[in-house]
Amino acid sequence: MGSVFEIPRGTRDFIPQDMIKRRFVEEKLRAIFESFGYKEIQTPTFEHLDLFTMKSGQAVIDELYVFIDKGGRNLALRPELTAPVIRCYVEKLQMEPKPLKLYYLGNCFRYDRPQKGRYREFMQAGCELIGPSSPEGVAELICLAFWLVKEVGVKDIVLECGHIGLLRKVLSTLSLNDEQTKRILPLIDKEQFDELSTLLSEYAIPSEQKTLFMDIMKHSRLDLLKDLFKDSKEETLQIERFEEMIHILNDIIGKDSFMLNMGIVRGLDYYTGVVFEIKAPSLGAEKQICGGGEYDLISLFGGRNTPTSGFALGFDRTLLAMEIEKAVFPSIDIDYFIIPVSKDEISSALRIALHLRKNGKIVDVDLMRRGIGKALKYAGSLHASHAMIIGSRELSDQVVSMRNMNTGEQQDVPLKTLIPDFML
Amino acid sequence: MGSVFEIPRGTRDFIPQDMIKRRFVEEKLRAIFESFGYKEIQTPTFEHLDLFTMKSGQAVIDELYVFIDKGGRNLALRPELTAPVIRCYVEKLQMEPKPLKLYYLGNCFRYDRPQKGRYREFMQAGCELIGPSSPEGVAELICLAFWLVKEVGVKDIVLECGHIGLLRKVLSTLSLNDEQTKRILPLIDKEQFDELSTLLSEYAIPSEQKTLFMDIMKHSRLDLLKDLFKDSKEETLQIERFEEMIHILNDIIGKDSFMLNMGIVRGLDYYTGVVFEIKAPSLGAEKQICGGGEYDLISLFGGRNTPTSGFALGFDRTLLAMEIEKAVFPSIDIDYFIIPVSKDEISSALRIALHLRKNGKIVDVDLMRRGIGKALKYAGSLHASHAMIIGSRELSDQVVSMRNMNTGEQQDVPLKTLIPDFML
Repeated sequence: MGSVFEIPRGTRDFIPQDMIKRRFVEEKLRAIFESFGYKEIQTPTFEHLDLFTMKSGQAVIDELYVFIDKGGRNLALRPELTAPVIRCYVEKLQMEPKPLKLYYLGNCFRYDRPQKGRYREFMQAGCELIGPSSPEGVAELICLAFWLVKEVGVKDIVLECGHIGLLRKVLSTLSLNDEQTKRILPLIDKEQFDELSTLLSEYAIPSEQKTLFMDIMKHSRLDLLKDLFKDSKEETLQIERFEEMIHILNDIIGKDSFMLNMGIVRGLDYYTGVVFEIKAPSLGAEKQICGGGEYDLISLFGGRNTPTSGFALGFDRTLLAMEIEKAVFPSIDIDYFIIPVSKDEISSALRIALHLRKNGKIVDVDLMRRGIGKALKYAGSLHASHAMIIGSRELSDQVVSMRNMNTGEQQDVPLKTLIPDFML
Repeated sequence: MGSVFEIPRGTRDFIPQDMIKRRFVEEKLRAIFESFGYKEIQTPTFEHLDLFTMKSGQAVIDELYVFIDKGGRNLALRPELTAPVIRCYVEKLQMEPKPLKLYYLGNCFRYDRPQKGRYREFMQAGCELIGPSSPEGVAELICLAFWLVKEVGVKDIVLECGHIGLLRKVLSTLSLNDEQTKRILPLIDKEQFDELSTLLSEYAIPSEQKTLFMDIMKHSRLDLLKDLFKDSKEETLQIERFEEMIHILNDIIGKDSFMLNMGIVRGLDYYTGVVFEIKAPSLGAEKQICGGGEYDLISLFGGRNTPTSGFALGFDRTLLAMEIEKAVFPSIDIDYFIIPVSKDEISSALRIALHLRKNGKIVDVDLMRRGIGKALKYAGSLHASHAMIIGSRELSDQVVSMRNMNTGEQQDVPLKTLIPDFML
């Protein structure tokens, strides 16, 4: 069961060496989102439970942390951020000029059995693009996702693009019932084509139709898709728009950077058009780090229907992939560690520290009244680049005794060269 | 009751203009904590319920969001961050060299009736200093708190320092019972000295003793305190240490920057020594924005007893005080808004955008295929400093038509001056 003084099961503490990495990634992601004209938004940690069941169905309740507030409302810790952001958009931002580009970074909660790489509290980054229905809108979105992952330092990635709207249309030509559709979708998603073929035979799909369907799914043959729908204007337009999106993506990130995959299902009912996923093969089984596409939630939440697309990026998996690929993280080390030799120099040491901090330096002062040797050892454990020793002689000479912690060299440095206009 | 599509009562959305301010304050706070040698730590959003009742008593349950996890454990959304950070210290960081300087920024939850300036989800910044018992340790801590508030831009503040350990000692000379102590503490805290005087008479405290007690509380007379305890070595040492702390604080932030207030109670049982509060009078009734001091929680949570001090800073109230004092916040505006004249220039526009972003610019591209006039109007609503128009003539001449959005001036700029080594 564990003691009350232990961290709750499935959650994590991030100690300083973790936080340096996390803040580094967070700041990189934020800078890239902003360079694309996206603006940050933050919503509460919990929402009305129904917000999530409206979006994802009743089954999602089993994965939610649910509680009741003083007004008797059912609340849930958010499992993802798209529903809250769209709720906020409908409540407060519908009148903003379009496109509206919103991004977020936030912790989410999933109430399942903890396992490797899956936590009950985890962080997601993501964005929503509200307004454009053009192929370049979703192309720029996919380019942003691709760039975020690449630029933080995950080099080995696979980007796949599909189209849920067209997938649904192809499926409808098979005239399957709901139960049958429900069984074949996971097989398409997991690329289990042999099982898919067996199941389609079981469902008595005519051989020619089955072969065509398998070719479209397995090889993402847009030419076959076009041929299938050549007499239907709506589907033909959808295919042309998808091809235009692919063409733009070719131009801006290069055709070797992504693959077509008409079998992307995304497991969520609210996608309507182009969908995409980014995987980092180095992560093994839990390799998907980003996914998104065109969807409709605004009208479901009572807003005026508006084209929307977006994606979510798993922060923890991205960080894990960076670590596996030996990405380099910065460190935040102490510039100066100041050691007052006796009680009489404490105030001076603290004053010098304050002035250096004001000038942008990271400075620590020994607060333990220990010997110089022990204080230097501690400064070493902090990776301080310099130690500054201040005794009565230094004070009366208006100098500090500066020790380079790497070389061990030590010399007097006048206070006024260190901090102009400062007198003790 | 409100619809499920509304934000939960007592919580807030932060739309982009809010987030710019919040990130600005957050980054300033983080930079100052780090300049003092503090390192960031993050703990989960929820903990075992008992962690908080151990620290603050059973009564705190009424203010907590409580829920049960799959293992049947009682969990609570954190109402503050000191207990989680100390829990993490005891679990994972006890062996680190001392002093250990930890800071945090995180959202907390309080389950009470929403009212002006009080939210059910709110943000706290704060830190814990683990190791030092010296007067300069707590003096530097108070100096840090003072500096955080000043440097983010709250100029009108009052810093008060007291000593809970000595307050308890003075109280014990009155020989009150628990019930009586419980009634007089809030009067001391709220500086209701008339009511305090009446109550002490009611409790039949001898007149001379009452006058002495009132003088110490009301006027923070350390000389009287010293006299009261002149025969007790322990209390005398505590007073001398407190005086040394005050002396250092005088030296480093100036004696006009703070006041003594022996009546600071802090409402929490775990403080042991020096305590302090920072108030922003501009905030009115909810004016306290920072509070902390020396406390003991480590041994309560099963760790090896170690001197500890820390404080928490109310992020929302700090931001509110900044706004009242008309602090200046930065803005994040678009550098270039690129408008492709027709479909044929879309890929080029997106490619130019990517290159400029790579060079640190904030760039947006029109994704709506609207006329130049409408696109320019939209660029104006984004406060873009330049619009860049790209048509077939510009493409063939390898230039862009650059419009200064403030002056309306427009001229051709060669692509190669904008992005060296770039060809369309």
